[in-house]
Amino acid sequence: MSTRIGLVGLAVMGQNLALNIAEKGFPIAVYNRSPEKVDDTVARAQAEGDLPLVGYKDIQDFVAAIERPRSVIILVKAGKPVDDTIAKLVEHLEPGDLIIDGGNEWFENTERRARQVAERGLLYMGMGVSGGEEGARKGPSMMPGGPQEAWERVAPILQKVAAQVDDGPCVTWIGPGGAGNYVKMIHNGIEYGDMQLIAESYDILKHVGGLSNDELADVFAEWNRGELESFLIEITAQIFRRRDDQGDGWLVDKILDKTGMKGTGRWTVQEAAERSVAAGTMTAALDARYLSGLKDERVAASRLFDDPAPPAGIDKAALVNDVRQALYASKICSYAQGMNLIRATGETFAWGLDLGAIARIWKGGCIIRAVFLDRIKQAYDRDPKLPNLLVDAEFAREIKERQDAWRRVVGLAVASGIATPAFSASLAYFDSYRRARLPANLVQAQRDLFGAHTFERTDREGSFHADWE
Amino acid sequence: MSTRIGLVGLAVMGQNLALNIAEKGFPIAVYNRSPEKVDDTVARAQAEGDLPLVGYKDIQDFVAAIERPRSVIILVKAGKPVDDTIAKLVEHLEPGDLIIDGGNEWFENTERRARQVAERGLLYMGMGVSGGEEGARKGPSMMPGGPQEAWERVAPILQKVAAQVDDGPCVTWIGPGGAGNYVKMIHNGIEYGDMQLIAESYDILKHVGGLSNDELADVFAEWNRGELESFLIEITAQIFRRRDDQGDGWLVDKILDKTGMKGTGRWTVQEAAERSVAAGTMTAALDARYLSGLKDERVAASRLFDDPAPPAGIDKAALVNDVRQALYASKICSYAQGMNLIRATGETFAWGLDLGAIARIWKGGCIIRAVFLDRIKQAYDRDPKLPNLLVDAEFAREIKERQDAWRRVVGLAVASGIATPAFSASLAYFDSYRRARLPANLVQAQRDLFGAHTFERTDREGSFHADWE
Repeated sequence: MSTRIGLVGLAVMGQNLALNIAEKGFPIAVYNRSPEKVDDTVARAQAEGDLPLVGYKDIQDFVAAIERPRSVIILVKAGKPVDDTIAKLVEHLEPGDLIIDGGNEWFENTERRARQVAERGLLYMGMGVSGGEEGARKGPSMMPGGPQEAWERVAPILQKVAAQVDDGPCVTWIGPGGAGNYVKMIHNGIEYGDMQLIAESYDILKHVGGLSNDELADVFAEWNRGELESFLIEITAQIFRRRDDQGDGWLVDKILDKTGMKGTGRWTVQEAAERSVAAGTMTAALDARYLSGLKDERVAASRLFDDPAPPAGIDKAALVNDVRQALYASKICSYAQGMNLIRATGETFAWGLDLGAIARIWKGGCIIRAVFLDRIKQAYDRDPKLPNLLVDAEFAREIKERQDAWRRVVGLAVASGIATPAFSASLAYFDSYRRARLPANLVQAQRDLFGAHTFERTDREGSFHADWE
Repeated sequence: MSTRIGLVGLAVMGQNLALNIAEKGFPIAVYNRSPEKVDDTVARAQAEGDLPLVGYKDIQDFVAAIERPRSVIILVKAGKPVDDTIAKLVEHLEPGDLIIDGGNEWFENTERRARQVAERGLLYMGMGVSGGEEGARKGPSMMPGGPQEAWERVAPILQKVAAQVDDGPCVTWIGPGGAGNYVKMIHNGIEYGDMQLIAESYDILKHVGGLSNDELADVFAEWNRGELESFLIEITAQIFRRRDDQGDGWLVDKILDKTGMKGTGRWTVQEAAERSVAAGTMTAALDARYLSGLKDERVAASRLFDDPAPPAGIDKAALVNDVRQALYASKICSYAQGMNLIRATGETFAWGLDLGAIARIWKGGCIIRAVFLDRIKQAYDRDPKLPNLLVDAEFAREIKERQDAWRRVVGLAVASGIATPAFSASLAYFDSYRRARLPANLVQAQRDLFGAHTFERTDREGSFHADWE
C-alpha cells in the first residue's frame, strides 16, 4: 500500500497521532527504532477500527512506502534524538520531501535543521502539538511553522486531524522558521500560568475559606459553566471528586506537593527576559514549581515560622465569588503577557504572525482550550494592532468589574500567609501597565547618580546627566 | 619606567581604576585605541598627585613597558571589543602573562577566552568590578575568577586597590573559570532588586502616605542610620533633596519614569530559570524596568482605568515604620534568592564558592554595599551549608518581627492600586518557602491527568499514575 504520510516515533503521542491521521482517511506508514512499538501500533490500528496504518521495522522500507513528494512527521524526544532521526531519514529521502518535527523543540534548533536539510533539497517544519495523549488521538491543536509551501502540502491532512471548533480546525500556518515551535512554547508558558492560578485559587478556598474537596469540586464545576469554562477548570473539578483507591479520603490530598516540569516553561521565562517583555505571571508559575521541589527545606522552614492568624468572619460564598473574579482577571494578564511575547518575537524575526488566528487555534484540542480564547480572538479581530489585551474595550470592562474582588482576594491571601505569586504578579502587571506614572524616575535618578547613565525629562527633549553632589 | 601592571581601555572606569592602582603605589602602563584618552589619563595622573602612570599610544611599547610575567587589565565593552582587544594583545604577550577582563562579561565568554589564550600559554581572569566610576577611583569591590595562580600574582595589588572594610579588602578569589563574572552578574541582579524595592517604598510613601520630597529625604536619611544603612538608601535621600536647576521644584519629579538597563539583570533572570532557582524579586525588578519603558502605552491605559479610592485614615509615621520593615524583610528574600542562585551554579560547575566570603567583599565599594552584607556573612559563618538565609536564626527572627508590617504594606498597596511587584514577589517567596504544604499537589494531579506525568504520594514511596476517568 502506498501511504499518504509517514510518522516516526511511536511513544503514546506518536501512536495516537498516527491513529488519528489514519482514522481521518489518510493511509499512514509508521516506523519506530524499537520494533515492539511498531507491533503495538499496528495492533491498535486494527483494534480501533481497522485503520489504514502500515508498520515498518526497516526505515528504508518505511520511506519507500510513502507517496512522493513525501511528508514524514517525527515525534521523538527534543534535542539529539531529533538530530539522530533526521540523520537516518535523510539517507533515504529525496529532494522535495518534507520532514515535520512534532515535538516541543527549541525554535532555533528547528531553524538550524531546516538549513541543514535544505542542503539536500528537503523541506522542514517545526510543529507544536498540544492536547496531550488524548488530544493527539481525538484532535489536537497544532502549530506548524516553516515554509508556506510545506504547509500547503500537509494542510488537507492537518485540518482534518486537528480538533474542530465552531470556526474551523485548530490548526493554521503560524509563520516561517521556528514560529510554530515558538508559539507552542508560549502556549506551554501560558499553561503553567493557568495551572498556578488555579492552584492558588484552591489554596485560598481550602485554607482561608475552609472548603472541602467536595465543595471544591462543586465550585470548579460551577465555574466551568461560565466565563472560566476550560479544560483545566473541568479537570480540576474532576480531580477533587476522585477518591483515593489506595486508602481513605481523596487522592488529591495524598499527592505529594512537588511539581515536575519539562523545558518549555523555563524557555518561556528566559525568552520573555530576552525580548524585554514583562511576563511575571508565567515566571511566578515557574518559580512556584521550583519552590515546590524543595519539599524537605520547606518542611524544615515551616517549623520556624507560624502561620498568621486566620482571618475571622469569612463568608464562603462571597469568597468563592471573589476568587472566581480574581482568577479571571489574573488570567487576562497572563494571556496579555504571552500574546505580547509572541508579538515581540514575531516582529523581531518578521514572522508576520496573526495573533487572532493563534488564539483561535487554541480554542480546542490543547491544554489551555477555553471559551476565553474566543474572546481574545475577538479582541484581535477588533484591533489587530491591539498593544495589550488589557486595553481592549471588552477586557478592560471585565477587569474593571472584577478589580475590587481581585484586590480583596490578594489582600486576604497576603494577610493569611497564603502565597499567591501568580495572582500578585498579575495584579502588579495590571497596576504597572495602567499607571501613567511609575516610580521608575527614582531608579533612573539612582542610575544617573552612581553610573552616569543619564535620564530623560518630562518637560523637554534630550538626555540629561545631573551633578548630584 | 618598568611598570608593575598594564591597563587597556581608558573610558572613565578604566581611567579611574588605573589612577587608583597608581595611587596605591603600583606603577602602571596604560593604553587606549584612541590616543586622546591616553593623554587625558596622563594629565589626570599628574593633576591627581603626580601618580606613577605612563601612557602609551602604541600597543607594542605598552606591553614592553610591563614587568614580566605581565598582568594586563582590560576594561572595554563586553563582547566583541574584548575579543578584539585580546587579539591585539596576544601578539605581543609571552607565555606566563596574564589578561584580566574587568568588564561585565557573560561568564561563558570568559571561559572560552581562557581556553583560547591558554593555547599560547597565557593566563586569563574574568573580574567583576562594582562601584561605578567613583568606586573604581576610590576603591571598588572586585570579584576575580580564574586560575588561582593568577589570583596570587595580582592579589597584592588588588587587595590595596579594593575598598577596605572592617575585616579587610573587598576582594577575594571567587573561584575558577567564569566564577568572578557570574558572581558580579548576581550582584547586579541583586542591585536591580534593591533599587526596585526602594522605588516601591517611594511609591507607597508618596501616593498612599502623601509624603513630600523633603519628608522622603528625611525618611531615607533616617533609615540610613539603622538596619537599612546602605549606599542605595543614602543616595536615595540625596536624590530627594536635589532641586531642579532647570526650573521650579525637585529634580526627581522631572525625571521621566523610564528605566534603562544593561544586560546583567536580564542574564540573572535567565540564569535563575536555567538553574531552577526561584528568583521572583529580581525578576519583578527586571519586569518593572520593561514596563516602565512602555510609557506611551501606560499613559493610554491610564485613561481607561481609575485608581482605586485612596485608603482613609493613614497614619504617616506608622506607614513609614511599616514600609521600613517591609523593605528590610523583602531585602532578605531577594538576597536569599541571589545567594542560592550563586550556590546552585557554583555546585553545578564545582567552583567551590564561599558564600560568606562573597557577602563580605560586597560590604564596601560596590553599589549594594550595606551593613546588611555583614549579617549575611555572619549567617554563613554560623552555617556554611545554610540552605536559605530565611532559616538562619537571626534572619528568621528579624522576619518574624517584621512580617505583620510587611503584610500590612503589601495589602495596603494592593488595595490602593500601587504596583508592588518586588514586595509581593518577596512575600510570596517567603510564604512559599516557609510552608510545608503547597497546592502543587493539584498541579501534579493535573499533569498526571492530561499528560500521564505521574506523581509521588505523601504516604508511600514510588511513582504513581492514576486512571482519572
